[in-house]
Amino acid sequence: MITDIINKKRLGKELTFHELDMFFNGYLNGEVKDYQMSSLLMAICINGMSDEEVFSLTKIFIDSGDTLDLSFLPGIVVDKHSTGGIGDKTTMVIAPIVASLGIPMLKMSGRGLGYTGGTIDKLESIPGYRVNLSDEEIIHQVKNIDVVITGQTASLAPMDKEIYALRDVTGTVSSIPLIAVSIMSKKIAGGADKILIDIKYGNGALLTTKKDAEELASLMKKIGKIYQKDVHTIISDMNTPLGFCVGNSLEVLEVIDILKGKETNNNLTKLCITLASELVRMAKGGLIEDCQDMVMDAIKSGRAYNKFLELVKAQGGDISALSVSKKYKYIKAEKRGVVDKISAIRVGELSMMLGAGRKTKEDSIYYDVGVKLYVQVGDKVKKGDILAKVYYKHAPHLQDFKDIFVIK
Amino acid sequence: MITDIINKKRLGKELTFHELDMFFNGYLNGEVKDYQMSSLLMAICINGMSDEEVFSLTKIFIDSGDTLDLSFLPGIVVDKHSTGGIGDKTTMVIAPIVASLGIPMLKMSGRGLGYTGGTIDKLESIPGYRVNLSDEEIIHQVKNIDVVITGQTASLAPMDKEIYALRDVTGTVSSIPLIAVSIMSKKIAGGADKILIDIKYGNGALLTTKKDAEELASLMKKIGKIYQKDVHTIISDMNTPLGFCVGNSLEVLEVIDILKGKETNNNLTKLCITLASELVRMAKGGLIEDCQDMVMDAIKSGRAYNKFLELVKAQGGDISALSVSKKYKYIKAEKRGVVDKISAIRVGELSMMLGAGRKTKEDSIYYDVGVKLYVQVGDKVKKGDILAKVYYKHAPHLQDFKDIFVIK
Repeated sequence: MITDIINKKRLGKELTFHELDMFFNGYLNGEVKDYQMSSLLMAICINGMSDEEVFSLTKIFIDSGDTLDLSFLPGIVVDKHSTGGIGDKTTMVIAPIVASLGIPMLKMSGRGLGYTGGTIDKLESIPGYRVNLSDEEIIHQVKNIDVVITGQTASLAPMDKEIYALRDVTGTVSSIPLIAVSIMSKKIAGGADKILIDIKYGNGALLTTKKDAEELASLMKKIGKIYQKDVHTIISDMNTPLGFCVGNSLEVLEVIDILKGKETNNNLTKLCITLASELVRMAKGGLIEDCQDMVMDAIKSGRAYNKFLELVKAQGGDISALSVSKKYKYIKAEKRGVVDKISAIRVGELSMMLGAGRKTKEDSIYYDVGVKLYVQVGDKVKKGDILAKVYYKHAPHLQDFKDIFVIK
Repeated sequence: MITDIINKKRLGKELTFHELDMFFNGYLNGEVKDYQMSSLLMAICINGMSDEEVFSLTKIFIDSGDTLDLSFLPGIVVDKHSTGGIGDKTTMVIAPIVASLGIPMLKMSGRGLGYTGGTIDKLESIPGYRVNLSDEEIIHQVKNIDVVITGQTASLAPMDKEIYALRDVTGTVSSIPLIAVSIMSKKIAGGADKILIDIKYGNGALLTTKKDAEELASLMKKIGKIYQKDVHTIISDMNTPLGFCVGNSLEVLEVIDILKGKETNNNLTKLCITLASELVRMAKGGLIEDCQDMVMDAIKSGRAYNKFLELVKAQGGDISALSVSKKYKYIKAEKRGVVDKISAIRVGELSMMLGAGRKTKEDSIYYDVGVKLYVQVGDKVKKGDILAKVYYKHAPHLQDFKDIFVIK
């Protein structure tokens, strides 16, 4: 019985494959109601899941849809996922770099809920860019130009889509087992041989502590092992926004700057180079230093940026039409000192207030609003220096966001 | 934001009155969805609630409806509640006893979900008995004959009705704070001065351990204190069924036997006398021994049974039309020995299977099926002795219920 399964998890007991299968597939076919699923999800959030339960649930999620066969692609196929954070635009940077080195990148990304849009929303800020390619179009494009960034196709782990939408509105997002199942089921169904996961922790991330991030990394590796997928993880800080821009079109503009080699010395560029180098090593082997040299060269030579232009064009986007709002305000330093902190979560909240992100799935978002930071942690500032430029549609009350910056 | 409140409780933090108020009243007006409420309820089940939270939620439940003004009744007005169990028919026994001693008993009872019906369902097995009296009818009847047993009126703590229906299907029933809020909000809104709560623990009860029952008792007394209501509690065992009969009309027949003084030496009769004596003492004061004498005399003199007949008649019931199924099977002893255990939960499950209880609110129940025990714990039996008579509509597979009785 449905409530018996919920009660079992409420009491912290382990559910069998059969129980999880009945419950989750029962949800898809309407026998288990959403109020029953959310109750079980909360019990899982608080009482956790054993490794066996996580493996069972991953299998159930994968089996809810198709598995992509990427054997037509040459060599080792790699995939990359980030658990997301404020200003995280790494996918848009890394995919063209790696593809420009002849490694195919078939990337399916999500829409965002929260402070900004997801990668797919950000790319949609490029007028014309199509994010809903068919399976045939995806295969055609990756064969042709080695790179695709499109929305998740409905056929891969459809269970995850349903469950994620419910978790999002029921306070059941922050669960390490559920995050692991959600990401790994999609990645495994996605058909890559090796998977790189960028796990973020900090005030602007799903997980707040490094310990949680490490636990998630370890769990994902265990799941990968069962499916003979090599899972690599990188754990990175999300207490400070990634890069200088937060918003949709603003972030695409920053991606262009990085690919053009204009931005070299900030946390975002460094992370992108680390991730891209690791992907190259996973695909081709060799020393990480050599892989990094290849990545740097792809940027310096302009090949990475050209690959990005090729990608955008192939998916119908017109990069010259990318725009940011004409209306803006500045946040200025109120005293002299050194920038001690830039709060990722507070920048995210400002971005949300500006309309760059959505609260519910039905919300629409503004592509051309957001925050551009003028300083990094450690920079010296004088009173009156510009700390950030805020692009808006409806004038924001910036007084409430003074605490983004801590100057000491 | 709704999910912020859920997340706060997921992390085990204390919610403010304002947060609880927003969330629960938001549920009533449709802003908070049932899948969000069930998620919060599960977080409460697992992480618990502080006393302050319990007080806040009780107030919110009470304020969701009316509060009865019983000041028109003479003297101290008492009320009684049982947390329920297998074969619990105490209300139907106690109310007429107490009323026959001139103490008004205005009892609002619930329908059951689970192994048998609730008190209201049981009374409905008496053809014609009306359980949906209006406020005017209730007041008229209690003034006239000192006793009413009717369904909960919609105007008292309507929040509880909504939340309870959701808890029942989401595995969130077994929570001491939620049980305390549910019962106490209805009892306080019910307007009595003093409240007696019979808290059951054991395999056939909501709470399994005596410790949990004691915790609930203590919490209910604290809530009562805030509303200047004297709360008395009695903790009683529910590992063994109460009395000999489980089912709807079968239980009413047992009530009649007790009120006629035919059944004197079993766990049910003893508990009824204890509870009735305590109610008399709460209403009139004096020594418990004297109160017990009054209760015994009410039974012996026939006044208690006459009051029951008066009650049934006043509410339109025809006791001569009460019937049990003509179809029955026996469970017989397979060996000689002493009855060591009679499992309350297994009798309940058999009763459920026979159709005496309902799984969902929409289910209909059979009034005339059930189980009549022929033995008590401690009785000596020989092989072939009848242990129970099982009244059915659709022939049950009794082989599966051999474990009801343990004979040593």
